[in-house]
Amino acid sequence: MDKKKVAILGASGYTGSELIRFLLVHPNVETTYLTAEKHAGKMISDVFPHLKGLLDLELMPLKPKSIPKNIDVVFAALPHGTSAEVINEIYHRDIKIIDLGADFRISNKNYKKWYGAHPCPELIKKAAYGVTELNREKVKKAKLVANPGCYPTSAILGLAPILKNKIADESKIIVDSKSGVTGAGRSPSLDYHFSEVNEGVKAYKVGEHRHMPEIEEGLSNYTGLKVNVSFTPHLIPMDRGILSTIYVNLKKKTTTKQLISLYKQHYKNEQFVRICEEKAYPSTNQVRGSNYCDIGMRVDSAKNTAVIVSVIDNLVKGASGQAVQNMNVMLGIKEDLGINGAPIFP
Amino acid sequence: MDKKKVAILGASGYTGSELIRFLLVHPNVETTYLTAEKHAGKMISDVFPHLKGLLDLELMPLKPKSIPKNIDVVFAALPHGTSAEVINEIYHRDIKIIDLGADFRISNKNYKKWYGAHPCPELIKKAAYGVTELNREKVKKAKLVANPGCYPTSAILGLAPILKNKIADESKIIVDSKSGVTGAGRSPSLDYHFSEVNEGVKAYKVGEHRHMPEIEEGLSNYTGLKVNVSFTPHLIPMDRGILSTIYVNLKKKTTTKQLISLYKQHYKNEQFVRICEEKAYPSTNQVRGSNYCDIGMRVDSAKNTAVIVSVIDNLVKGASGQAVQNMNVMLGIKEDLGINGAPIFP
Amino acid sequence: MDKKKVAILGASGYTGSELIRFLLVHPNVETTYLTAEKHAGKMISDVFPHLKGLLDLELMPLKPKSIPKNIDVVFAALPHGTSAEVINEIYHRDIKIIDLGADFRISNKNYKKWYGAHPCPELIKKAAYGVTELNREKVKKAKLVANPGCYPTSAILGLAPILKNKIADESKIIVDSKSGVTGAGRSPSLDYHFSEVNEGVKAYKVGEHRHMPEIEEGLSNYTGLKVNVSFTPHLIPMDRGILSTIYVNLKKKTTTKQLISLYKQHYKNEQFVRICEEKAYPSTNQVRGSNYCDIGMRVDSAKNTAVIVSVIDNLVKGASGQAVQNMNVMLGIKEDLGINGAPIFP
Amino acid sequence: MDKKKVAILGASGYTGSELIRFLLVHPNVETTYLTAEKHAGKMISDVFPHLKGLLDLELMPLKPKSIPKNIDVVFAALPHGTSAEVINEIYHRDIKIIDLGADFRISNKNYKKWYGAHPCPELIKKAAYGVTELNREKVKKAKLVANPGCYPTSAILGLAPILKNKIADESKIIVDSKSGVTGAGRSPSLDYHFSEVNEGVKAYKVGEHRHMPEIEEGLSNYTGLKVNVSFTPHLIPMDRGILSTIYVNLKKKTTTKQLISLYKQHYKNEQFVRICEEKAYPSTNQVRGSNYCDIGMRVDSAKNTAVIVSVIDNLVKGASGQAVQNMNVMLGIKEDLGINGAPIFP
Repeated sequence: MDKKKVAILGASGYTGSELIRFLLVHPNVETTYLTAEKHAGKMISDVFPHLKGLLDLELMPLKPKSIPKNIDVVFAALPHGTSAEVINEIYHRDIKIIDLGADFRISNKNYKKWYGAHPCPELIKKAAYGVTELNREKVKKAKLVANPGCYPTSAILGLAPILKNKIADESKIIVDSKSGVTGAGRSPSLDYHFSEVNEGVKAYKVGEHRHMPEIEEGLSNYTGLKVNVSFTPHLIPMDRGILSTIYVNLKKKTTTKQLISLYKQHYKNEQFVRICEEKAYPSTNQVRGSNYCDIGMRVDSAKNTAVIVSVIDNLVKGASGQAVQNMNVMLGIKEDLGINGAPIFP
Repeated sequence: MDKKKVAILGASGYTGSELIRFLLVHPNVETTYLTAEKHAGKMISDVFPHLKGLLDLELMPLKPKSIPKNIDVVFAALPHGTSAEVINEIYHRDIKIIDLGADFRISNKNYKKWYGAHPCPELIKKAAYGVTELNREKVKKAKLVANPGCYPTSAILGLAPILKNKIADESKIIVDSKSGVTGAGRSPSLDYHFSEVNEGVKAYKVGEHRHMPEIEEGLSNYTGLKVNVSFTPHLIPMDRGILSTIYVNLKKKTTTKQLISLYKQHYKNEQFVRICEEKAYPSTNQVRGSNYCDIGMRVDSAKNTAVIVSVIDNLVKGASGQAVQNMNVMLGIKEDLGINGAPIFP
Repeated sequence: MDKKKVAILGASGYTGSELIRFLLVHPNVETTYLTAEKHAGKMISDVFPHLKGLLDLELMPLKPKSIPKNIDVVFAALPHGTSAEVINEIYHRDIKIIDLGADFRISNKNYKKWYGAHPCPELIKKAAYGVTELNREKVKKAKLVANPGCYPTSAILGLAPILKNKIADESKIIVDSKSGVTGAGRSPSLDYHFSEVNEGVKAYKVGEHRHMPEIEEGLSNYTGLKVNVSFTPHLIPMDRGILSTIYVNLKKKTTTKQLISLYKQHYKNEQFVRICEEKAYPSTNQVRGSNYCDIGMRVDSAKNTAVIVSVIDNLVKGASGQAVQNMNVMLGIKEDLGINGAPIFP
Repeated sequence: MDKKKVAILGASGYTGSELIRFLLVHPNVETTYLTAEKHAGKMISDVFPHLKGLLDLELMPLKPKSIPKNIDVVFAALPHGTSAEVINEIYHRDIKIIDLGADFRISNKNYKKWYGAHPCPELIKKAAYGVTELNREKVKKAKLVANPGCYPTSAILGLAPILKNKIADESKIIVDSKSGVTGAGRSPSLDYHFSEVNEGVKAYKVGEHRHMPEIEEGLSNYTGLKVNVSFTPHLIPMDRGILSTIYVNLKKKTTTKQLISLYKQHYKNEQFVRICEEKAYPSTNQVRGSNYCDIGMRVDSAKNTAVIVSVIDNLVKGASGQAVQNMNVMLGIKEDLGINGAPIFP
């Protein structure tokens, strides 16, 4: 098979460089076109010294019309709004598009409420929401995949089995998430200045984070239930990783063993989801750099509640890794190509 | 006033060295006796090089009978069980005792369930539970104070006003806590080996941590309600700090503004509790090294819930700082002596 | 004694907040005036939440003429150039001035070479260079003290005894320094963005850092020798601390024991310099938050060289702590007032 | 080609798990046998949860005779002494052996001095010293390769070109190295307890580290000169990475540009060595997880000295990555198989 040609729009951020990392070892594709508005004219290795000698490409300005005709796959890692505009311009082409931004993840109604007016609302319905494990058939047929947010990926994979099986009350779920700092991107600001973030933990956007409606929609669409989530994100002094601690009330009696067994069954064909044994709870550092989502859980029978702990690498399963996974599904090739590396520990 | 003489039992751990730090700048007391079973015979500056030149004391073996007659105040920073045994032997003396361990914090019934048989259960009732702000009068009269656990201090101070005022449902509270690694003490183990902990977050002892019954008892005693808490502690890659994110269901309608106002009123005479304004949530790094507890909150009217975020330095307000605060109250001197330093930021 | 009134110009950076921390517990002074050009109009606790409840002052714009008449001491924590201009305008007043910037640390000739034209070169000679331990008599009489740079403080204190005693070759010294990130200040930039700095070490400005001439001048002035230093600074993923590893060739035979003894003798009356015993080398975390400089060393007799390791907290002995020390000397009061707190470990 | 079968002796440490990570994506080998004395009987995923689902092997006790007959390649990641004993027992077999320990890196004379009596000194001369780039031909023919130490790899690659070309004085070299904590291995001790190491930098084993004679021998053998090095290692609060700052005196006039050009020429066929442009100095985080060694440099013409900065990932090019590189050379296959992944940044 000829190698498919890939363009990455917005290549100078962390999700861009992670895409490059995975595609460099992918046997079926090659990265041939990069844009980065602010850094146009520089080489990719000027903005990412770690890529020196690995990819010798110049960063181009972001002009949809300049994207070469021979490109087969486009990854968009752009600010929301901009992403939709660009994708709208290239949608007619014979390409596959994976959008790592927020523009096609939620309904137009929620988009308007949480992000503002959408540039091309008619495209939203054409996009497949790419939590690959839960929506593989739609992703397979899609021309445009909305790659999920980092927090939603961890929360949705953690909740899907228990909600789908109607064991937990979908109307009162708490998701308490802890994220490494790369989740905030690569633009300098006092909020992410080393000494402001280091050696501290804080909550932010309590009950107001844009990933909350995405979690609710993602789970509602998957289960057919009206899912209601209280979501609190926290910033943790580390580079990578999201851990979501999820609290649910049980509608049906179950035990920890039974619940673990249910999760194992639910994900039994899924290479990238690993279920922990009883009393073992995952650390984010056991998935670092990899596309895994590891999930541990415990039922408190006396209180009739369950706690589910779900971890991912926010830049991998929470962004670029899942994007490559979705690309593989869209191209009909082996799903783990490019992303089958072991986690890097420590 | 003559300086009171202080002994610290178990001085080679982090709470020991923090006690020393505070007492060194305290105008009314002096530290004159230290024990450290494993390090007996060494100087304190051999086990804590940062104290070189500041305190020139030899570490003694732990023998209750060898504690000098002229000691006025004893801080016990010992393993549970051992602590009760030692305190039982010296209780008859004319001294004040602050126990930083778990032996006198909870009822004998709960102690038996969570820790095992108590060496001197009759002493438990004589101890005052030392969340100073909530129990000052009892502390004032006590000969023995049970200094609260780190997680309980953050949770109890965060919940006291809303429960006391019967605004939140006491039967279904979630406390999701994040702690720096000093909370685990100074004994080496793989669990706290640098590269195992760094760059990772994990939950541990989910629903089974011994601080859970302490939080419940502490709040039940304070409010007269039967308080029920689901508690999940997490380990964060930083030295100091606990952040507790607390989720409650509201029994009475309230707004964020009203709730903040209630908290300010509740703690209006408290020097060490600071209430954040609307939309501001505290980071643990704004209380580092200090005795403060900072609290932020938000009501979600649509969901009829509230989120309360409470931060402390686990070694200070969560241990040694509050211990000194309790000593000050017991001695009838100014409550902030020795612990009035500003937080150290960054 | 009436409390002296202190103004801090440039209070919204890390050295500003550290000055406030020390002055808050200083018995003889009170901070009454703060400026912060970018944040004028805000309260100090708006830019430093950790100071909430501790200092209730509004940040003023930087206008030399607006500095109140009743101010006794001015700390300038301003960009170089600006600092000299402001100090030039207020120099005629009956005040003590401590400049934490670079404007009065080195000769006009070197200033021109490394920083550019000086706004008021005639003032340079009137300033005392404030490595307090080495220049106390001049500081005592000075109206203006040039508070030393962070790297120079660690290097100069580490080298003073061995050079003064003509044991090491002054013409070929290597200083390899490692600094925490607060040394770079509080202005956001990609260079100090959390995820760019975390989990990495790098050298920067190799052989070109402006602190190199300051080290050379400081030591040349102190010893009367022509001191020549190769200086390489490194950035370390931590908040605070500088460790300088210093390599010298020996001119006279000596042993590790003898050298340690010489250093102890040299600093025997110095409260803030601690000399380590043989085979013990200091960590920056044993001086964190304190005004100490800890020094360890080893002679390699076979190679006729010595290695000296010197650690400080860059924000304390390397900036604000030494500034307060200098103020105390200038005011003729006890030298450790406000800065006698123990290091905060961990 | 049939996959070669690999055994890893001492698989429960960090170098063991890194070997597994690389071999899992290596097309020509498969890992089939693991030992771990302390953890015998457990699965590898019990001691390394990040490997769950990736390698399903039980850890065996370390018995040379039990190593299966079908093993083609043995990696030994064992304590020194033990390693030599085991290798001595299996040396007669038709296998390739890569020893990641110290037993075959230096001459028997130096071994005796720095480590003690060698169990099988006659084997030392048969081993090839595996800084692959400098000794490829010997590695190719070797049955036993002594994989270099982490510090030596960074220092030797940084010094080889300038010494080989007789530009620097080989008799007075200073190597100041900074290492992440994984270099100390996975055994818990107070020295590497999280809160003791975090937020601090320290020097250790100043002038006495066992890697010093290895650096000297490695370079002397390569250049034919009598190389003399002063070596100071430091511990840095991060997981991975070594940065060595190397100070040399010049014997021949050269400029930064010329020196960079010389290094580029020297390593022009080397995939894993990257030379930085003028004024660019590498950070350890640009090689993390990869087999690269990045080198930057600066000549100070006035002082007639040069500073060379060399970075590697201590667990990869400093251990397991170079071990796989050596295996590939020994097997006559493509040198980057298994280790061609991009660095993981951040």
